[in-house]
Amino acid sequence: MKIGKETQPRSAICTANEHTIVVRGKDLCQDLIGKTSFTDYFFLLVTGKMPGPAASRVLDATLVAIAEHGLVPSVQASRMTYAAAPDALQGAVAAGILGCGSVILGASETAGRLFDEIDRRAGPGGDLQTAARAVVGEWRQAKRAIAGYGHPLHKERDPRVDALFAVARDSGADLRFVAIAEVVEQVIPEIVGKSLKLNVSAAIPAVLLGVGFPLAALRGVPIVARTAGLVGHLTEEATQPIGFALSYQATRELEYTGEVPAGFIAGH
Amino acid sequence: MKIGKETQPRSAICTANEHTIVVRGKDLCQDLIGKTSFTDYFFLLVTGKMPGPAASRVLDATLVAIAEHGLVPSVQASRMTYAAAPDALQGAVAAGILGCGSVILGASETAGRLFDEIDRRAGPGGDLQTAARAVVGEWRQAKRAIAGYGHPLHKERDPRVDALFAVARDSGADLRFVAIAEVVEQVIPEIVGKSLKLNVSAAIPAVLLGVGFPLAALRGVPIVARTAGLVGHLTEEATQPIGFALSYQATRELEYTGEVPAGFIAGH
Amino acid sequence: MKIGKETQPRSAICTANEHTIVVRGKDLCQDLIGKTSFTDYFFLLVTGKMPGPAASRVLDATLVAIAEHGLVPSVQASRMTYAAAPDALQGAVAAGILGCGSVILGASETAGRLFDEIDRRAGPGGDLQTAARAVVGEWRQAKRAIAGYGHPLHKERDPRVDALFAVARDSGADLRFVAIAEVVEQVIPEIVGKSLKLNVSAAIPAVLLGVGFPLAALRGVPIVARTAGLVGHLTEEATQPIGFALSYQATRELEYTGEVPAGFIAGH
Amino acid sequence: MKIGKETQPRSAICTANEHTIVVRGKDLCQDLIGKTSFTDYFFLLVTGKMPGPAASRVLDATLVAIAEHGLVPSVQASRMTYAAAPDALQGAVAAGILGCGSVILGASETAGRLFDEIDRRAGPGGDLQTAARAVVGEWRQAKRAIAGYGHPLHKERDPRVDALFAVARDSGADLRFVAIAEVVEQVIPEIVGKSLKLNVSAAIPAVLLGVGFPLAALRGVPIVARTAGLVGHLTEEATQPIGFALSYQATRELEYTGEVPAGFIAGH
Repeated sequence: MKIGKETQPRSAICTANEHTIVVRGKDLCQDLIGKTSFTDYFFLLVTGKMPGPAASRVLDATLVAIAEHGLVPSVQASRMTYAAAPDALQGAVAAGILGCGSVILGASETAGRLFDEIDRRAGPGGDLQTAARAVVGEWRQAKRAIAGYGHPLHKERDPRVDALFAVARDSGADLRFVAIAEVVEQVIPEIVGKSLKLNVSAAIPAVLLGVGFPLAALRGVPIVARTAGLVGHLTEEATQPIGFALSYQATRELEYTGEVPAGFIAGH
Repeated sequence: MKIGKETQPRSAICTANEHTIVVRGKDLCQDLIGKTSFTDYFFLLVTGKMPGPAASRVLDATLVAIAEHGLVPSVQASRMTYAAAPDALQGAVAAGILGCGSVILGASETAGRLFDEIDRRAGPGGDLQTAARAVVGEWRQAKRAIAGYGHPLHKERDPRVDALFAVARDSGADLRFVAIAEVVEQVIPEIVGKSLKLNVSAAIPAVLLGVGFPLAALRGVPIVARTAGLVGHLTEEATQPIGFALSYQATRELEYTGEVPAGFIAGH
Repeated sequence: MKIGKETQPRSAICTANEHTIVVRGKDLCQDLIGKTSFTDYFFLLVTGKMPGPAASRVLDATLVAIAEHGLVPSVQASRMTYAAAPDALQGAVAAGILGCGSVILGASETAGRLFDEIDRRAGPGGDLQTAARAVVGEWRQAKRAIAGYGHPLHKERDPRVDALFAVARDSGADLRFVAIAEVVEQVIPEIVGKSLKLNVSAAIPAVLLGVGFPLAALRGVPIVARTAGLVGHLTEEATQPIGFALSYQATRELEYTGEVPAGFIAGH
Repeated sequence: MKIGKETQPRSAICTANEHTIVVRGKDLCQDLIGKTSFTDYFFLLVTGKMPGPAASRVLDATLVAIAEHGLVPSVQASRMTYAAAPDALQGAVAAGILGCGSVILGASETAGRLFDEIDRRAGPGGDLQTAARAVVGEWRQAKRAIAGYGHPLHKERDPRVDALFAVARDSGADLRFVAIAEVVEQVIPEIVGKSLKLNVSAAIPAVLLGVGFPLAALRGVPIVARTAGLVGHLTEEATQPIGFALSYQATRELEYTGEVPAGFIAGH
């Protein structure tokens, strides 16, 4: 069935003949395997260009920062899925990735969109504070979540934030979006009515947008990173399974709030 | 509900307090962010140990080798899914990962299990050719697929194989499993009845098992790598959509082989 | 980690002891198995109440209407995934479901939200045409898609629309949302600038909202229905595989628009 | 890329022109919508034939039996995913379906394969007990799981078993596979060394194989059924969220077994 007008598939990423695989204009086997890091290759795949030294260091730092934070909900979902379907590692990874949504890991993209709007609103040389106050205010009024601020565990600034900002500074990255992220943190109390500190989901776009990583690919960073974390957890699950123990614990205090038939006696 | 006997969840991967996130015994923000590459961190997450220089180079090379090979079926599935559900990048990535199964990308794990069995059968100092002939013969008889040999496009050895073997040699990796992989290639014609050359799915375990990457985590390597490739494709899809064009092309010559009601005239 | 304030899980859907499984207040084995259709049970699971005769017939009709429409993109994604990972039927089904997003099958929910807003805007006894004109106009101005109108193949009204409306009428369902759906079809030309006929995605909420199926569960109808269709396709795929043939066809005319290294000659 | 020899896609399920949608030889809008139940349509989609009365009742009963059993691991995974990614209902459903693997819901298929093998071993008029003893013994020796027997909660026979068997008897279904399932239950103690009672995962193939539902599609029954259950849970989650409460409870007693840096003090 023809959906939309375009019927000719085109792509600028990869082509191959029997002897050569070309990725983004380079010969995969001659120019890339053994010569570039996976992180730099990821940058190349997404943008079509090799990263400079700052982009390389910053992207590495963000991938390391977000890959692992213990048994968060999506990791639990993944380990439960693996316990129930151990033949399909890929299914358990997929289940874990499906939790990279707007509330949790997808927050990086949302925060990036906020910073981008503030950047464009201020324009070159414009006042960031004024622009931040205006844009954050409009988002609040439109009931759009201000993602990337506040954390259930780290009430002060999430320690990953300063670590990422330090890498951005040390590597000579453009710090404009770091500045925007900090200005947003400053204006939040007056607009939202409480202090919410920068967390890692806002720090990621703050450092990545300054090194040319595209806004449209931001959500891909926590997804790639978390995939590595999930493989770590599922490798542990394969030898020390806790998927069913987690699901048992989760429901120990479960309260059933529906009706029961006459004579039914609750189990223990 | 209690499934199995274990009710106490335990994990050795990550813990945290309000100020510090500990991953595999290290302080994430002090010791890892900005100080280790994502590839080395992946090795740490999976094995609990930092990789040596050979392991680091070899793992990077395998991730780069397998991340991207154009519009293979799982990439098509991912781009079609994104076209239909553009609000959920994570869903499109998950759809792509779900194709990392036994036939395509999961072949790395299957090949690794074959090599591991040959390694143990031969034992230290034993003859690899004899062991390979025996084990490959047994797998054939049990109708188990000999994964990682032959390729639809690359009839000679997949060019990624030599590139990966070169990295293993140059980085001083243990080459025992490379030798096993080549011995298997040699015995295949007499057992299978045709020549099937090593492809990238066999080369990956051949180089990784020699640097201490665990057998149980092998399928994780193409999954992590392919996730980066998928993010590249979906970033392109966001601006140059071809998901629906691919699905249109796929069915242009579709033949309907079922019955039709009286009077039905086929569409065009 | 504690995310949000609520720590006590509660659910009104199901409880059990060793002898009895209670679902929505009923004894599953005594009252439901063999005594209720799967469709009615689905209604019970979602709403907590057994459907009346109209709700039962209408829900059945919508599930039948949307389960199958050939090799649409999400079915192709599912069959390609199964070809690549045949050990995991659940993974191929999941890949197919992931395409039930905002553009394709999720349109039912979006259309339902539009009708609900028009219903509340008009109020009891209010003029539907005025309300529809206002709400559709506002959605257009806010660049929100008017989902459920127009179809790539069925340029006249999708034939499933009249079939569903006939079931609603014949079963004595409340037809208010059918009326709203038709009024929207009437006002679209003046607001959107072209005629777009009702398709099945708008007909589904039009008939379901009149029989008490909740707005919040609308996207579940195409998902449940399509799962049945996917199982049909994957059962066929298991014996007559076309997943790889589809992916081959899809890229026969693929154009590579990126650069190539010096000397590279395109394959065929 | 051409994978395998077949390049011509063919399907016998659905075709359409602008006015008519044909499914399995019938006119969807004239013959099916409003005239057939979703359950019968599912049978038609999978087998190409309308079910007889026994098949219709038995398939309905199995779908009702397996759709819902409370907050089992896959439902928890789904609700946690929805809590983290509420914009993508389809993703949360997919995460839940990914747990329909070999250990939990996929057991129906495995049990069906066991019964099928016993059926063919015994042949027409052969002794089922002898055949069951032989086949179960061989599966044990080959370390293949005897799926569908034993249950963590229902130590006596899972109450859904007798309910399903009663439907099969009352509807006049062929009871051969019910007999096989019961014979397996009888021989298990002598072969496995303990009594394991029939559970719902074995009862499903026992009744379905007798009404012509294909072995290859058995895993589809719990998948379709569970999808309806998941939609019920996710509709509840949308208004009474517990996804994060479940994940909090799951880790309250989590023990970290890895190392910590000097000076690290565990959180609470």
